[in-house]
Amino acid sequence: MMEAVRWLRCDGVIVSLPEPETLAMPGKLRLLDQTLLPEREVYFCVDDLPELVDAIRRLAVRGAPAIGCAAALGMAAVAQHYPEDPAAFGAALVRDAEILASARPTAVNLRYAVERILAIFRQEKTADKKTALACILKGALDMLREDIQLCSAIGRYGADLLPDGAGVLTHCNAGALATAGTGTALAPVYAAAASGRRIRVYSDETRPLLQGSRLTAWELHREGIEVWTICDNMAGLVMREGRINIVIVGADRIAANGDTANKIGTYSVAVLARYHRIPFYVAAPYTTFDLSLADGGGIPIEERDPEEIRRGFGRMTAPDGIRFYNPAFDVTPAELITGFITDRGILKPPFSLQGYL
Amino acid sequence: MMEAVRWLRCDGVIVSLPEPETLAMPGKLRLLDQTLLPEREVYFCVDDLPELVDAIRRLAVRGAPAIGCAAALGMAAVAQHYPEDPAAFGAALVRDAEILASARPTAVNLRYAVERILAIFRQEKTADKKTALACILKGALDMLREDIQLCSAIGRYGADLLPDGAGVLTHCNAGALATAGTGTALAPVYAAAASGRRIRVYSDETRPLLQGSRLTAWELHREGIEVWTICDNMAGLVMREGRINIVIVGADRIAANGDTANKIGTYSVAVLARYHRIPFYVAAPYTTFDLSLADGGGIPIEERDPEEIRRGFGRMTAPDGIRFYNPAFDVTPAELITGFITDRGILKPPFSLQGYL
Repeated sequence: MMEAVRWLRCDGVIVSLPEPETLAMPGKLRLLDQTLLPEREVYFCVDDLPELVDAIRRLAVRGAPAIGCAAALGMAAVAQHYPEDPAAFGAALVRDAEILASARPTAVNLRYAVERILAIFRQEKTADKKTALACILKGALDMLREDIQLCSAIGRYGADLLPDGAGVLTHCNAGALATAGTGTALAPVYAAAASGRRIRVYSDETRPLLQGSRLTAWELHREGIEVWTICDNMAGLVMREGRINIVIVGADRIAANGDTANKIGTYSVAVLARYHRIPFYVAAPYTTFDLSLADGGGIPIEERDPEEIRRGFGRMTAPDGIRFYNPAFDVTPAELITGFITDRGILKPPFSLQGYL
Repeated sequence: MMEAVRWLRCDGVIVSLPEPETLAMPGKLRLLDQTLLPEREVYFCVDDLPELVDAIRRLAVRGAPAIGCAAALGMAAVAQHYPEDPAAFGAALVRDAEILASARPTAVNLRYAVERILAIFRQEKTADKKTALACILKGALDMLREDIQLCSAIGRYGADLLPDGAGVLTHCNAGALATAGTGTALAPVYAAAASGRRIRVYSDETRPLLQGSRLTAWELHREGIEVWTICDNMAGLVMREGRINIVIVGADRIAANGDTANKIGTYSVAVLARYHRIPFYVAAPYTTFDLSLADGGGIPIEERDPEEIRRGFGRMTAPDGIRFYNPAFDVTPAELITGFITDRGILKPPFSLQGYL
């Protein structure tokens, strides 16, 4: 399985564990540049804040859990250039944390990760830069390791929903490329396939940025899983034709009542699934739940550049002078969601997240 | 309004009426090359069968009524090169008619137009090539003129459904570019706008070939009508946000029970409209109804080259080795259709097309 987010030690070793040897050594955040897929598999390293923010904004790294891990490891890399003076070090960390947290507004994992690193640093109260760096890096690698484990747990629980021969529809990419592990929505697919079941995945291409055809199809095919790419507008037809037994999608933020923000188009898929009486599941680790929001109305929705629609792949595909609407996410109301596949089991309605988390 | 399908006389005059002067003169079919829009507005002429079939297959001319008119005028142009001998002329016409009719399988208008020209030729029973050519061209120009009138009638009836400020969602292109006149789905929009009402159109971009963003947005903007381009997967969201008062789409073939084949994605839009209690209308002239089919199960659905999905904009957007599903159309069952806006008024369920046609 490819590794979308990792730590690269100065001795060239790629790591995902907070071992003492790693914590004592400089390093960088290592990312797979997802904007170049499926044509080229290129990795690059980051230890500079503007580059890190840029990588998140231009979607070189995307997917709520992957963004969270990248932000944490990115803070560890950037902090290496901070002053020795403890007050100045702390001020720089707080300043960069705020810039980083606002790079993308919708996914809750980004702010969660940044705040967790800040909290770890504050708790440590060290006056020594070397110790501070080690504790930040340890926090970030703990999160990375945890994310890998969360994906495995989601996969384990979700695989029970996928019998041999199941047809799964997914939207966007909530796979290995969207996490440090095997994904959220795709983790059950990988787990079911690993136990010998034959799974067919239908991947909505997911306009405007085609994460479904560029990323989901790429990673599933690479792992030997049968994947069909369809245009977003074919989802209703493949459901009607009986090809789909279950829909599983990821999430960028889930409110306390279960309303779920995910990639634009998820809401339409949920409505189509309801009409065709197909179960619609959201797969997400606990880090994606935001209990500070009572419902989905409070989730900020990022609007992105209309050029993503108009000139997505080089050629101009819409005339000058017209209007565009390009929200990057939509909110699927809880009543359309059959259940949540989480790292702690499958949650069914009525959702009582407060007790669960 | 641009003229997507016309007759170009050898003296350079573009015509749409079967006047004696025109019938006595050689000429060619003149088409707007829709594959080049919205970047370039290029017209080209055809008087050769392989070119005509190619223009239809590569979608230089598309839209059920426009294909029908292009086929009829194309037959008139191609027939100019047939032998003088009446038997040989007739044999060539029948042979080419069959090749032409099978260029695209789904739209009924193509076969309808070809058979109408053949019937006109057979009825005329002329032994003289010049007279035969004139009668074929007259038949084709009659169809062109009729199509323009059918669009106007659809526009008149449909405009009553569009109050000032209405938000209309449409899918693919069923406008002036899809007909010889003002369109089918867009005819009511043009008619309402002409009577001073402000109409907002949301145009699904319509993957894989983007007829919505390339063509619908282009022609509406050119006519001064407010148009928003959205990705197909945003249709559910804009409905939920209350932006849409009515959905109007075109049709490629309508079975006797009202089941309607139209551009892939139409079915998903119909389901979304039903969920949001938004009226869903199909606009089509009587030439699109096929009473030989009891229901939509008998409509042949064209599957097109997966490269349309995989390499639609020049750049490769899906990896090698995966599977694709690329049906060009889907069938919306009659029960999801609020009504048909036809040239003879608005038909509401229960549909009794047999009596109507």
